[in-house]
Amino acid sequence: MKNAFYAQSGGVTSVINASACGVIETARKHKGKIGKVFAGRNGIIGALAEDLIDTSKESAKAIAALRHTPAGAFGSCRYKLKSIEEHRAQYERLIEVFRAHNIGFFFYNGGGDSADTCLKVSQLSEKLGYPITAVHVPKTVDNDLPITDNCPGFGSVAKYIAVSTREATLDVASMAKTSTKVFVIEVMGRHAGWIAAAGALASDKEMELPIVVLFPEIAFNQAKFLAKVDATVKKFGYCTVVVSEGVKGADGKFLSDQGLRDAFGHAQLGGVAPVIAGLVKNELNLKYHWAVADYLQRAARHVASKTDVLQAYATGKAAVEVALKGRNSVMPAIKRVSNRPYKWKIEIAELKDVANKEKFMPRDFISEDGFGITAKCRQYLTPLIQGEDYPPYKNGLPQYVRLKNVGVKKKLGEFKV
Amino acid sequence: MKNAFYAQSGGVTSVINASACGVIETARKHKGKIGKVFAGRNGIIGALAEDLIDTSKESAKAIAALRHTPAGAFGSCRYKLKSIEEHRAQYERLIEVFRAHNIGFFFYNGGGDSADTCLKVSQLSEKLGYPITAVHVPKTVDNDLPITDNCPGFGSVAKYIAVSTREATLDVASMAKTSTKVFVIEVMGRHAGWIAAAGALASDKEMELPIVVLFPEIAFNQAKFLAKVDATVKKFGYCTVVVSEGVKGADGKFLSDQGLRDAFGHAQLGGVAPVIAGLVKNELNLKYHWAVADYLQRAARHVASKTDVLQAYATGKAAVEVALKGRNSVMPAIKRVSNRPYKWKIEIAELKDVANKEKFMPRDFISEDGFGITAKCRQYLTPLIQGEDYPPYKNGLPQYVRLKNVGVKKKLGEFKV
Repeated sequence: MKNAFYAQSGGVTSVINASACGVIETARKHKGKIGKVFAGRNGIIGALAEDLIDTSKESAKAIAALRHTPAGAFGSCRYKLKSIEEHRAQYERLIEVFRAHNIGFFFYNGGGDSADTCLKVSQLSEKLGYPITAVHVPKTVDNDLPITDNCPGFGSVAKYIAVSTREATLDVASMAKTSTKVFVIEVMGRHAGWIAAAGALASDKEMELPIVVLFPEIAFNQAKFLAKVDATVKKFGYCTVVVSEGVKGADGKFLSDQGLRDAFGHAQLGGVAPVIAGLVKNELNLKYHWAVADYLQRAARHVASKTDVLQAYATGKAAVEVALKGRNSVMPAIKRVSNRPYKWKIEIAELKDVANKEKFMPRDFISEDGFGITAKCRQYLTPLIQGEDYPPYKNGLPQYVRLKNVGVKKKLGEFKV
Repeated sequence: MKNAFYAQSGGVTSVINASACGVIETARKHKGKIGKVFAGRNGIIGALAEDLIDTSKESAKAIAALRHTPAGAFGSCRYKLKSIEEHRAQYERLIEVFRAHNIGFFFYNGGGDSADTCLKVSQLSEKLGYPITAVHVPKTVDNDLPITDNCPGFGSVAKYIAVSTREATLDVASMAKTSTKVFVIEVMGRHAGWIAAAGALASDKEMELPIVVLFPEIAFNQAKFLAKVDATVKKFGYCTVVVSEGVKGADGKFLSDQGLRDAFGHAQLGGVAPVIAGLVKNELNLKYHWAVADYLQRAARHVASKTDVLQAYATGKAAVEVALKGRNSVMPAIKRVSNRPYKWKIEIAELKDVANKEKFMPRDFISEDGFGITAKCRQYLTPLIQGEDYPPYKNGLPQYVRLKNVGVKKKLGEFKV
């Protein structure tokens, strides 16, 4: 009977631990077929460094609490394994560590890069005579994986941005007569505008609010943007601009990259929100405020989407189940069955179809003028933010779990990561 | 029987409408003693412009929904009436409008400035032979009003900052091995550090997290700050810096005021978070991320403190009750009765003791090194974030109410505000 290895990869989300919970609880239910679940401390680096965490030391209660705990309970990392040709030693080391700890299952929880790593590990392990069953568990707030209808992690950040945009826009509406007329909120998504699109959900039939969205998929046109804001403020008295961090000008340069200098000539860091706010102030002479949500948005487990939590758990669970059925080099994907009522199921995608592909917003999800979403996009997004799934609170604060993360005794020599 | 006038003043909060709900529901319960409640459209400007809203046109359901709706349902404004000597005409106009609409009660929902206005209106109305019963309803996220133990509006922003800081810090902890080591979050509070202090609540006995707080009450010392961050990152591997927007250097200048210029020499807007992040990067060479919560924090009704909601409602309710008992020039204040269990009651403060006074963080609430809070401060803050009070959701979004805000027919001529 083989043990399993589980690792979290790349930027964490508010529900990646729900996937971990699904993996570990399901493995525990199949004690006769799968041994211990070891987790990589700080992701795949933990495997390379043979720094494994023994999850069997955690109580059932602690593992269950992962379901409502944001961030990466075992640590994650931004570490992309190079190509096999370039750095075969890394892959060989992985297999060596897996062999030393009798690991036959590899569950890798991440985005496009980790899907690619997962595939390569599976392929090479076979060549090296120690075949590993490798299953990728999807995770990314960017929602940019192909095949799967949506990615666990996205629904919750979308809900956070939709809720926050609605709330802040009501604030601006209250004060616009004498104060702020344009509120700018910067959201994540360097390449794909899915999160920015979620800002537009703040406005719906029951509560119409003036929201202008700037997508990374649409080249920024200053004149058109200013005309849009001007017209919106003239009509409503105020507006909110939801701007993706990845918005670029026609020259392909990030708008946030303005070469800011302080009074002494030192380079300063800027987001794109203050750039947009500056335009609004300088060109339209309108009072502004701006916010940069940054990590708050992807960590906001307190306002997670229940749909997202369920799907994150389900993909983790399915990963173990399909691995036990002998499927290899695959990823549990979310398949939308119907919109009204929203129904979904888990299907199994081949990793070769997933790895290294990015899914952008289709053009017909973005309104013709480029500043909003279409009905088609709204129909796609709305189910993903459905339902609330509050964590337990104590003393006014959410009770998130911190695991013991007991290390497994090393059996091999050092390896330079 | 006299009508009442209610207005919202200054920056709105996630619970100012709960106070409005308390005022209106309580007035409706005393139909024999108090007539209609008129609200000022966009605050006191609505009174000056004779732009009154007839709240009797709103259903009981709509008024009840104010309890869970953030921002200012009738509109608010930043408009401080000048001194009576300087601008007597404004006060006379207010009295004229009140007289024209048979208004005998003035409920003003705001901070220190509006407490002052409320007092002056009461005093002048008597001199002008049309005595108004004026009661101030406390509201400010800044928590800087005197007499009252705390201010409605603060508890919810404190909860939002404590929860968000906890969540984002867990995110950083997950990734610190290969990514961000220092996360900076900028919070409101230009003069008083109460909101920044709430960031420190993210760490407690059950979940120790490395949080460094920068208060406006403590002059920024760059060397001491960098040494603190350096030591904290060496010990924990990462840390979060909660910085108040109002932090100043020893020269008394706001740290956010760095005279930023873009590549073309145009002045750019900066918050204090990017300045702190820049220091961390340039002087300590640590990877950083930064967020600016801005309006998100004071609008975040989705994670409001139940204590805060109850107190906001209770002060609105008490305002009407004391006015009906004939008290004038007063403010319902929150009196802390005990800490464990937390008990509070409403007391009545004289407006002359409230107006134009700011309450800063006492020095013994700030740790000796200036970067954290003391046990005394924690004991003060903790009860204020207790309890959750979720709004109803539909389609994944909180269902906030928008009132009809039907105007009252004007009886007077124009007045230039």
